[in-house]
Amino acid sequence: MGLIGIGVGMLGFLTHQIIDCLIKLKWKLVENYLQNGNFHMTWICILGSGLAMILVSSGFVVFFCPAGVPCGLPEVIGFLNGASIQHIFNIKTFLGTFVSCVLAVASGLFCGPEGPMIHLGAIIGCGLSQLKSDTLGIHLPFFTRFQNSADKRNFITAGAGAGIASVFRAPVGGLLFTLEEVASFWDVRLAWQTFFCCLMATFTTDLLSSSLDGFVYRGHFGFFEAEKGILFWVKNLLDLSILAFIPTIFLGILGGLLGALFVSLNIKINKLRMRFFSSISKLFLRKTSKLLDSMMILVCTVTITVYLPYFFPCTPVRTLRTSQLKNNTEITKQFKKEIAEYTCTPATPWIGPDGVKYYNQTFNQAAALLAENGRRGITYLFRRGTHEEFGYTSLFTAVVFYFLLSCWTAGSAVASGLVIPMLYTGALYGRIVGLILVSIFGVQTNGYGAWIDPGLFAAIGAASFVSGVSRLTVSLTVIMIEITNDVQSLLLVMVAVMVAKMIGDWFNLPLYSSLLKLKCIPYLDSEPFASQRKKWLNLELFSARDVMEPCVRVLHLKEKIVSLAQLLANTSHGGFPVVYKSEPDQAEVFLGTITRLELCMLLENEPIFETETNEDTFSCDLLLSYQKITVEKLPDPPRTTMLLNHYSADPRYQRLFINLEPYINKSAVSVQAHFSLQRTYIIFRTLGLRHLTVVDLQNRVVGIITRKDLMPFQLEERLGLQLASQRLDLDE
Amino acid sequence: MGLIGIGVGMLGFLTHQIIDCLIKLKWKLVENYLQNGNFHMTWICILGSGLAMILVSSGFVVFFCPAGVPCGLPEVIGFLNGASIQHIFNIKTFLGTFVSCVLAVASGLFCGPEGPMIHLGAIIGCGLSQLKSDTLGIHLPFFTRFQNSADKRNFITAGAGAGIASVFRAPVGGLLFTLEEVASFWDVRLAWQTFFCCLMATFTTDLLSSSLDGFVYRGHFGFFEAEKGILFWVKNLLDLSILAFIPTIFLGILGGLLGALFVSLNIKINKLRMRFFSSISKLFLRKTSKLLDSMMILVCTVTITVYLPYFFPCTPVRTLRTSQLKNNTEITKQFKKEIAEYTCTPATPWIGPDGVKYYNQTFNQAAALLAENGRRGITYLFRRGTHEEFGYTSLFTAVVFYFLLSCWTAGSAVASGLVIPMLYTGALYGRIVGLILVSIFGVQTNGYGAWIDPGLFAAIGAASFVSGVSRLTVSLTVIMIEITNDVQSLLLVMVAVMVAKMIGDWFNLPLYSSLLKLKCIPYLDSEPFASQRKKWLNLELFSARDVMEPCVRVLHLKEKIVSLAQLLANTSHGGFPVVYKSEPDQAEVFLGTITRLELCMLLENEPIFETETNEDTFSCDLLLSYQKITVEKLPDPPRTTMLLNHYSADPRYQRLFINLEPYINKSAVSVQAHFSLQRTYIIFRTLGLRHLTVVDLQNRVVGIITRKDLMPFQLEERLGLQLASQRLDLDE
Repeated sequence: MGLIGIGVGMLGFLTHQIIDCLIKLKWKLVENYLQNGNFHMTWICILGSGLAMILVSSGFVVFFCPAGVPCGLPEVIGFLNGASIQHIFNIKTFLGTFVSCVLAVASGLFCGPEGPMIHLGAIIGCGLSQLKSDTLGIHLPFFTRFQNSADKRNFITAGAGAGIASVFRAPVGGLLFTLEEVASFWDVRLAWQTFFCCLMATFTTDLLSSSLDGFVYRGHFGFFEAEKGILFWVKNLLDLSILAFIPTIFLGILGGLLGALFVSLNIKINKLRMRFFSSISKLFLRKTSKLLDSMMILVCTVTITVYLPYFFPCTPVRTLRTSQLKNNTEITKQFKKEIAEYTCTPATPWIGPDGVKYYNQTFNQAAALLAENGRRGITYLFRRGTHEEFGYTSLFTAVVFYFLLSCWTAGSAVASGLVIPMLYTGALYGRIVGLILVSIFGVQTNGYGAWIDPGLFAAIGAASFVSGVSRLTVSLTVIMIEITNDVQSLLLVMVAVMVAKMIGDWFNLPLYSSLLKLKCIPYLDSEPFASQRKKWLNLELFSARDVMEPCVRVLHLKEKIVSLAQLLANTSHGGFPVVYKSEPDQAEVFLGTITRLELCMLLENEPIFETETNEDTFSCDLLLSYQKITVEKLPDPPRTTMLLNHYSADPRYQRLFINLEPYINKSAVSVQAHFSLQRTYIIFRTLGLRHLTVVDLQNRVVGIITRKDLMPFQLEERLGLQLASQRLDLDE
Repeated sequence: MGLIGIGVGMLGFLTHQIIDCLIKLKWKLVENYLQNGNFHMTWICILGSGLAMILVSSGFVVFFCPAGVPCGLPEVIGFLNGASIQHIFNIKTFLGTFVSCVLAVASGLFCGPEGPMIHLGAIIGCGLSQLKSDTLGIHLPFFTRFQNSADKRNFITAGAGAGIASVFRAPVGGLLFTLEEVASFWDVRLAWQTFFCCLMATFTTDLLSSSLDGFVYRGHFGFFEAEKGILFWVKNLLDLSILAFIPTIFLGILGGLLGALFVSLNIKINKLRMRFFSSISKLFLRKTSKLLDSMMILVCTVTITVYLPYFFPCTPVRTLRTSQLKNNTEITKQFKKEIAEYTCTPATPWIGPDGVKYYNQTFNQAAALLAENGRRGITYLFRRGTHEEFGYTSLFTAVVFYFLLSCWTAGSAVASGLVIPMLYTGALYGRIVGLILVSIFGVQTNGYGAWIDPGLFAAIGAASFVSGVSRLTVSLTVIMIEITNDVQSLLLVMVAVMVAKMIGDWFNLPLYSSLLKLKCIPYLDSEPFASQRKKWLNLELFSARDVMEPCVRVLHLKEKIVSLAQLLANTSHGGFPVVYKSEPDQAEVFLGTITRLELCMLLENEPIFETETNEDTFSCDLLLSYQKITVEKLPDPPRTTMLLNHYSADPRYQRLFINLEPYINKSAVSVQAHFSLQRTYIIFRTLGLRHLTVVDLQNRVVGIITRKDLMPFQLEERLGLQLASQRLDLDE
């Protein structure tokens, strides 16, 4: 766990450093052009470098990642829910995602590094815990005791949490995010392991950031400044009035509406994209068009970021006099970045009438909002006491473009995260609402009115939008506290989050559930839902019989090699029930299950085949160790297929048998056909099963239920038929 | 949910206000004596008022609460785990706990109001969701849809969370505490409901506190000051050095050791107490001796708090010059309370050489630490920049007495919480460690050394001790953030918490688990543990057969009234498997279960008895609605007993039958006898069962497993026998 944490922490540090360096480099390139007001050259330079980055970024995804699409959070969620997804945790995916994510963020697209970081964290968790890589062919002898699927799942969960913890420097937030959104199964022990892992990740990131900045040693090793550790530190807390809850609820509603809109828009765009790409038959063309898609997004983004600020004048850096505010900590900081200065003249110091050194620095509002990367923009927006730093026009422009472009970006062929853009969009409209309040009531600095601060509402808006899109509650609240260090506004944030979630749930599913559905990952919710004609069905009224697959291929304890081979070759089921007849005149009863993989592994070992056909003697000698047959995937699928064909064809195997008894899982759960469907679902889901055998009262196998049978659309279809037939009966 | 939150919030506000008022009143009484140095009169007054309070407090517990002991968190935990505990959620318990808790804290005992508040919150959650009270005989028609055990459990969980949220003003902390410690079953929806409930509770408490102070309207309605909202607000964050982790780890180790010591001491004291009380046979004497016990504790406590400060001189209020510190917010506040002043002369203002008004206020260190109530003491200890406010002697004295007395108090016959005393003890030794560091390195005020601050280490120490005792991790960390608003020291707190938990786990169980064990509440951990000769057993190697109760009374679909009545009268089982014979020559197979309560309710309705004995016709008409027979407890137990006797005796009922078919639970889970014990346990625990029928391959009932069969000691006993017999077999 510690190792995973350190690994993820280092990775998070690397990601940030590389992104920062690349962005700095990019803007350094065009500094001169900008100062001279040469927009076209700036545009060309930025676009050129951006395109190069995107090309590599998309290329890595398209050619390295499985299926040519970036996989991220939805796949991890699906995997932890129990769906089997191929190749999401191998080293090629890791490389592809890492390079793609870093370059995509650096290129200037409206996306953040969080989603990919969670995925990368999960991969590190998986890889370090297993210490083996099938792709690289490495199998180290350590940690073999962790090589079972339960422990693997735990390590993946911990790694995913560490990813969030490292990006946001929010260890508790990372942990809670994992528990709320990512993990389907967890207990207190897993929470505790993830806690440790997140702690180590944050610590490592902090430690490295404290000593290195842009890969240059700064001489502060091991010295954590509050300034750097807390991402969007809010320095002065405000006393709140109960009136602040009114705009907060309004922001919550807005967040819910916009969030729902964002989700449905994003899903629509992704559906369109999928349909378009699947209409292209040639593999190469399809890949190229994916590249083109992401490049088009970049062209739009860069054009907007470079040309738009042109229409905005330079604004002097205005601040409230510090003495007017209650807590007189130093509030204003100069914009040090050259990007925000844009074409404005650089700052010149002058001494004010009260003896304090002032800088008449000017900056371009739109440049500060659009051209900077999201993280810095959020810092600007959250800052307190800067009531009139940004005007309506720049905020409105930014929010519209950011909303649309980030919606378009998410789902394209680059590995990109959505959290930073979501926070940013929310902060923008939050600040607009704050600004409206300021316009109405004026700049208030006395105790009772101090809550009318656009910075406060930016933070609340950010929380509401994230909640509206992702429907997170607890983890989001904790992350907001951890990144702003503002417990005082906790209640406001909670109210906004809650309202946004309720409004959003009214309209559609959360983003990640929608993506899971879009990607056809069989994800089982913790409770079953099925509707028929817009009405929820009461699943207590249906039974397991109604959804089970009635045609089951059962195996006997002694099976002919030939029939086994044919069975495996002709079907693609993942598991088979094994039945057993205790006495010749008795019915065959359900004994246990055996999986496809185990059967395949057994068949690869010819020495265990038996010739005798005597049904009575069951030698329980374990000829093959369990370790050998419980593998996660076939070591050599083509060979197995060949072997199966060989077995089916060769008449010699007609007379050979295999004794399955020692290998079956005798603790396989079964339900009776009359069990209520609700109960069946709960059993399936809480025990995390893949196959559930359905038996009758005499314990004879009558059907089998798999994950796919319990998916909502499948449930709805089968139950619809059921209801229709009932209605027919009634009519007759 | 909102209602529960508001209710709990109001309750929390009430509790605090009453406690504060009572304490103020008490010390006002003795103000004059103190100023005159008349210790004996002070002692008599304080002791007298304290004794009166304790008498009422203990009296309420002894005569109102079930079994004459205060029940609190362990019972709630046990109930939510599935154990059935009588009377913990009725209105008498509520009253008893509330009065007892308020008076106990006000009387000056070293205890806090948290544990009882959780219990009270749970009762409110239970009562408001059901809107009925069996004790009061009130049954309102609303919310009947929530009157099932799953929803009730959810409401209780939410109420418990709201209790914590209201006491600490920590909504997220309350939620996490519930999830980590209190609830055994939960999903995302429950988390979300609890979130809402905690939010409302905190909001209500804040709102009421903002407007009323000591029941006097202050004119600030709806105006939340950061000062009041954040319990132990730490105002200046410190930049940390990596070196700060060394004392933190040391504090963690110390916290783990002391925590383990505290747990074992407390359990020993409670065992002694139980043995002593149970040796007294007379009920009245036993109750009186319980009262005496708590009074004895009070006498000790009061004597120490009043006389000890006598030996300490007055200390002037010293502070670092504010300008020396980095963030120059106002750090020092005058001690306004008269208790801390004790016998010292009141403050006189004087003007310093730099034109600032100084107060040469003096205070008594020991009085500030011991005589004040815990909450204010913690505020003193957490304060930053007050390096030398308290000396070694006063801190050492306080920590020793606090540790011992709070250990003695916990478990006596008053409803008392442990969190505030734990935080306090931890803060005391944390400050000692901080003071040692200051002594070694001197008072550092520059950037690199600013972390050497006793206030910081007090907070870390507090977290480490709570973790050492309760082994909480995530929720404790979040609560610490929420009460101090210090994200910067988050990493340090996390490290301390983690180390303390690891060290503590090395020695013994967490406090609440130990209390559960002590109180014989059948609590099932999420994973089974059983040891034999100090070695953990691998439960995969055992089967369900090894622990099941093989002698089961099974019922048939049609049962004679007489035999049912006799069965119910002679056994005390909670549920019975029902078997069914489809054809005469077939074996009887397991069909479902029926609970004792359902049987009793059925028997009370004579009209449904049938006379025919025809086994073949099963009329499935539901003569009684389910609502009538699914009750939580018998409405009138004596009548049922009488009825059962009547049925058994009267020969008329020999010929009457009852058809159980419509009433049995057909979705009852069963496992096969050869199932691995590990798997059986997991099924039992994750599905939250009370009875698990064990069947053989032909689905015939062979045994039953109940909660008690899976308790660790029971497992160990049965498996020990099993192992012994195996060993015998081997020897032969």
